[in-house]
Amino acid sequence: MGLTATKPTDGLMQDWPLLCHRIIDHAALIHGSQEVVTRSVEGPIHRTTYAEIRVRALKVAQMLDSHGIAVGDRVATLAWNTWRHLECWYGIMGVGAICHTVNPRLFPDQIAWIINDAADRIVMTDITFVPLLEKLADKLPNVESYVVLTDSAHMPDTTLRKAVAYEDWIAQADGDFRWRQVDENAASAMCYTSGTTGNPKGVIYTHRTNVLHAMMGNTGDAMALTATETVLPVVPMFHANSWGLAFVAPFIGAKMVMPGPKLDGASVYDLMYSEAVTLTAGVPAVWQMLLAYMDANKLTLPHLKLVACGGSAMPRSMIEAFLRLGVTPRQAWGMTETSPMGTMSVLKPPFSNLAEDERINLLTAQGYPPFGVELKITDDDGRRLPWDGKTSGRLKIRGLAVVRRYYGSDTEILDEEGYFDTGDVATIDQHGYMRITDRAKDVIKSGGEWISSIELENCAVGHPAVAEAAVIGLPHPKWDERPLLIVQLKSGATLSAREMLDFMEGKVARWWMPNAVEFVQSIPHTATGKIMKAALRQQFENFEFPA
Amino acid sequence: MGLTATKPTDGLMQDWPLLCHRIIDHAALIHGSQEVVTRSVEGPIHRTTYAEIRVRALKVAQMLDSHGIAVGDRVATLAWNTWRHLECWYGIMGVGAICHTVNPRLFPDQIAWIINDAADRIVMTDITFVPLLEKLADKLPNVESYVVLTDSAHMPDTTLRKAVAYEDWIAQADGDFRWRQVDENAASAMCYTSGTTGNPKGVIYTHRTNVLHAMMGNTGDAMALTATETVLPVVPMFHANSWGLAFVAPFIGAKMVMPGPKLDGASVYDLMYSEAVTLTAGVPAVWQMLLAYMDANKLTLPHLKLVACGGSAMPRSMIEAFLRLGVTPRQAWGMTETSPMGTMSVLKPPFSNLAEDERINLLTAQGYPPFGVELKITDDDGRRLPWDGKTSGRLKIRGLAVVRRYYGSDTEILDEEGYFDTGDVATIDQHGYMRITDRAKDVIKSGGEWISSIELENCAVGHPAVAEAAVIGLPHPKWDERPLLIVQLKSGATLSAREMLDFMEGKVARWWMPNAVEFVQSIPHTATGKIMKAALRQQFENFEFPA
Repeated sequence: MGLTATKPTDGLMQDWPLLCHRIIDHAALIHGSQEVVTRSVEGPIHRTTYAEIRVRALKVAQMLDSHGIAVGDRVATLAWNTWRHLECWYGIMGVGAICHTVNPRLFPDQIAWIINDAADRIVMTDITFVPLLEKLADKLPNVESYVVLTDSAHMPDTTLRKAVAYEDWIAQADGDFRWRQVDENAASAMCYTSGTTGNPKGVIYTHRTNVLHAMMGNTGDAMALTATETVLPVVPMFHANSWGLAFVAPFIGAKMVMPGPKLDGASVYDLMYSEAVTLTAGVPAVWQMLLAYMDANKLTLPHLKLVACGGSAMPRSMIEAFLRLGVTPRQAWGMTETSPMGTMSVLKPPFSNLAEDERINLLTAQGYPPFGVELKITDDDGRRLPWDGKTSGRLKIRGLAVVRRYYGSDTEILDEEGYFDTGDVATIDQHGYMRITDRAKDVIKSGGEWISSIELENCAVGHPAVAEAAVIGLPHPKWDERPLLIVQLKSGATLSAREMLDFMEGKVARWWMPNAVEFVQSIPHTATGKIMKAALRQQFENFEFPA
Repeated sequence: MGLTATKPTDGLMQDWPLLCHRIIDHAALIHGSQEVVTRSVEGPIHRTTYAEIRVRALKVAQMLDSHGIAVGDRVATLAWNTWRHLECWYGIMGVGAICHTVNPRLFPDQIAWIINDAADRIVMTDITFVPLLEKLADKLPNVESYVVLTDSAHMPDTTLRKAVAYEDWIAQADGDFRWRQVDENAASAMCYTSGTTGNPKGVIYTHRTNVLHAMMGNTGDAMALTATETVLPVVPMFHANSWGLAFVAPFIGAKMVMPGPKLDGASVYDLMYSEAVTLTAGVPAVWQMLLAYMDANKLTLPHLKLVACGGSAMPRSMIEAFLRLGVTPRQAWGMTETSPMGTMSVLKPPFSNLAEDERINLLTAQGYPPFGVELKITDDDGRRLPWDGKTSGRLKIRGLAVVRRYYGSDTEILDEEGYFDTGDVATIDQHGYMRITDRAKDVIKSGGEWISSIELENCAVGHPAVAEAAVIGLPHPKWDERPLLIVQLKSGATLSAREMLDFMEGKVARWWMPNAVEFVQSIPHTATGKIMKAALRQQFENFEFPA
C-alpha cells in the first residue's frame, strides 16, 4: 500500500462522459412505456413511447452513418415539436453529428444564409416547409439530400434533391447500431441567434453542456419535474434548444405532449386538457392566446400546475390571470447563448409568505440563477455594480452551459473574468432576483444615468388607446440622449401627445419622461416578433426635440 | 468564415469546472441568509447561515494553506453533523485537499489503521472523540496536529499533539483567501468502507463526482429539494458522503438542521418539531427510535413530508407507520462506493394510483436508478439476467459517481463493461425497480439455485419470541449448501426449533426452509451494527445437518 510519487488519489472514480444519448437510453430503459403524444403535422394525434423513440432514433443514426455523416458534421432540422423531431435530435447527436435546429420563421434569405454558414449536409424538414425549401434550394448547393418528416402516404411531390419520406428512410435501417462514443466536450447541437441587426450568429452546444443543463433544469430551482408530470413544450425545438425540455423531460421520465404546428389558443387548450398537462413552457404571446380563448369560453385547466414563460417579460396582468386559475407562473430568463436557462422566478422562503401584491411584484422579476449560473451587473467600464435592486447595469453571465465564442468567429466575447455580456441591462436585488430593465443598445443614457426604454413602453401601453409603444434614445445637446416615445394607436382611437404624457406623469420618474411623442401607423417587427428599434432609429434620425 | 481543417465546432462553450467550492459560493450568494441550525456538541442550539459558513470555510482553507497543506493532501475529520463540520468540509476541499471523514464508531484499531493508511496530516475532531484519539495518538506518527472543533471555553485539557481549539485556530485567519482552482477530476473527499471482513478500503470522491451527485440528488428521482425545504440529515457526515446531503442542501438553498451527537428519538423529534423539518434521511434503526418515541408520547410531525431511508432495508411495518403519519417513506440504496445514491423508491406514474397494499409492496423495494446510474444483474459468470422481478443475480453498477478503484490498490474491480460489483444480490423488475435480496457472500447456493438469507431472517424475526435471526449456508453433501437458522430469543422467551419452523412453513418457498435451527445467547455484530456472518460461519464450521 502506501503512497507513490504520483498522486495516488487521482482517477479513482469511473469515467462516465455526459453524452446526450444517455438521456434517451435512460428514458427508454427506466421509463420505456412513458408516452410522447403529438398533434401530428398531418393532423391526427399520434402516440408513442420513449422506448420506441430510442429504437427509431438509433435508426436515424444508422442511416446518417450509412450516408457518411461524420462526427462534427451538421444536419439541419426545420420542424415543429413532434415525436419525429425528437427522434431526429437523438439520432443526429447519437451519431456524433451536430443537430442544427433552423428557425423556419426567419426570413427566407436568413434561412438560406444560416444553412450555408453551418454547411448543413442533410436537411430534415416537416412537410410544412417543403415549399419554402424548394424556393431556396438553388441557394443551398451543399445540402446533399432532404428527409421529409412524414410517411409515403403524405409525401408531397417535390423538386428537393434526393428527397425521401422519413418513414421510408428509417425503414431501410435494421436498428443494429450503437451510438458513436464521442468526447463529452464534442459539439451536439447548434442554434443561431436572431439578432435585430447583422447576420445571425451560431451557438454550438456540447454533449456535456446539454446534459448538465438538463440536470439543472430538473432541480427545484427550475422545472422541478418528476416522472408523474406531463409536459407540453409550446416553445419550439428551434428556439434556444427548446429551453432544454427535449432533454429535461426524458431525463426524468415525464410524459411529453407535443403541439406540432398548431399553437393557437384552442389547439393548445384542447391538447392540454385532453392529455392532462401539468407543466408547460412558452412565450407570453402564446399564453395571451390561450388565456383569451379560455376566458371567452369560460374554461379551466384543472391539471395545470406550472407555466414557464420566457422570451420576453410576462406582463403583471398575465401573472395575475394564471394565479387566478390556480397555476404557478414561472418567468424564466435566458438566451440562445445560455442554453438557455439563466434565471427562474422561484419564490424563496422569505417571500413565499408575502402578501399577494408583493408576491406578484416579485414574480414580475426574471428570478434568481440556479447553481451552474453566475451573474454580475457592471457599468460600461466593466466595474461590478451593487445588488441593491435599484442600480441597473449590463448583465453578464458565466456558467456550465454558456457560450464562449460564436461559430466561425474569432471575436473574443468574454470579459477578463470569463463572463459573457448578454446585451441586457438589469438590476439584481440582495436576494439574487434579477430584473431585466432594457436591452443595452436600447437604454437611453441621459446625463450619465440610464433610462429604461422598456419601462417607459410598459407605462405607455397601459393607456387604453395605445396598441403598441416603442421608446428610442435620440441625441440631445445638453443630456447626451433623451427618450422619444413612438406610439401606434388602436384602430379608431385618438390621443394627443399631451394626453399621453399626462397619463404617464407620476407613473415614472420625472427625469425619465419622454421629451416628445410621435404617432405612427405601425411599429416594425423582426421575424421573431421583436420591435425593430434600429429601423425606428433610422426613421427618426433627423428628428429634433422641441426646445 | 467557412470551415477549417480542425473542427470549427469544438470548445465553443465556456469551461466551467465542477468544483465543490462552487456549491457553498452559490449558497452564500443566492441563499446567504438561509439558516443552518445545529444541536451543538457542547449542548446549546446554534444558528448560522450559508453566508457565514462560507466566510469561515475560507478561513479553514487559509489556515490549512498556511500549515502547508497541498493539493491532494489528506485532512481527517472525526465529527458529528454540525455547522463546524460543514465548514471543515468546504474548507478542506476548497484548498484542494481531501476531506477524509473518519467513522468514530469503528473499532479503535481500525480508526488508527485508516488514519495511517490515508496518511492524514491533520485531524479535526469533536471534543467527544478527544479521549479516543489520545489513546490512539502513539499509533498515529504522521498526524502533525489536531484541531478540536470547539471554542477555548470548552477546550479540554489534552495531550494531543499541537492541539488547538477550532475557534482560536480560524481566528488567526483574516479570510483574505481564494479557493484553490483544481481540475474537476481532482480528489475532494475520502471515505473508508467498513467491510465485514478484511481491512477497510478507501473510496476517493472527486470534485466532479460530488457536484454531479449533488445535481442528481436534487432531481425529482431523489430528494427533489427546493429552497423552501428544511432538511435534517440524521445520516452522519462520516457515512458514505452523508448521502450527499452536505452538498445537496446548500446547492438548492434548503435550510439545514444538524443533530450533533444526539440521535435518540426524543432529541431528533424535538429538533424536527421545533425547526419544522420537512425532509430527513437516516438508517432504519434511527427511525425505529423516533417512531417508538412518537408512539409512546402520542406525537405528530405536521411539517415532515419525506423520510429517506438507507443503510439497510426499511421494514414494511415502518413504511406503514410513516404513511399513517402522512409522511412519504423513500427507501434508498447505495454504498460508500457509489457516492452513495444508487436507487430511490419513487413511485412512477403507473404505480401512484395502485391500491394501498400494492403501493406499499412497491415501496419495500429499493427503487429505480436516476439518470447517471446504470444497473445490471448477472450470474456468477457475468452473463446478464432478465429484469423480470423474479430472477436474482449479482448487482453491478456503473455511473457518474461510482468507484473505479480503491485507494492504494492495484486490483481491478470493474468488469469488462466498466461495472462495479456491489456484492449485493438483487432482482430488478421490468420497470427498473430493484430489490436487494441478499449479500452475495451470504446467499445460499442450493442445487444451483439461490436462497436469500435475508428473506429467511425477515421471516424468522416475525415470530414474537425472536429478538434477532441470522441465516448462513453450510455445506451439504447433496445440495452443496443448505441454510442454518441461528436465533437469539427475546429475554425470557422460549421457543423450540420445531415451533420456529412451523411458524415459517408456508411463508417461504418449501425448498428454502432451513435444515436446522440453533439458538444462541447473542448474535455478533460489527462496529456499524451489521451481523458478523463470518464469525457465525466460524462458530458453526463443524456443524452437521441432521440426516
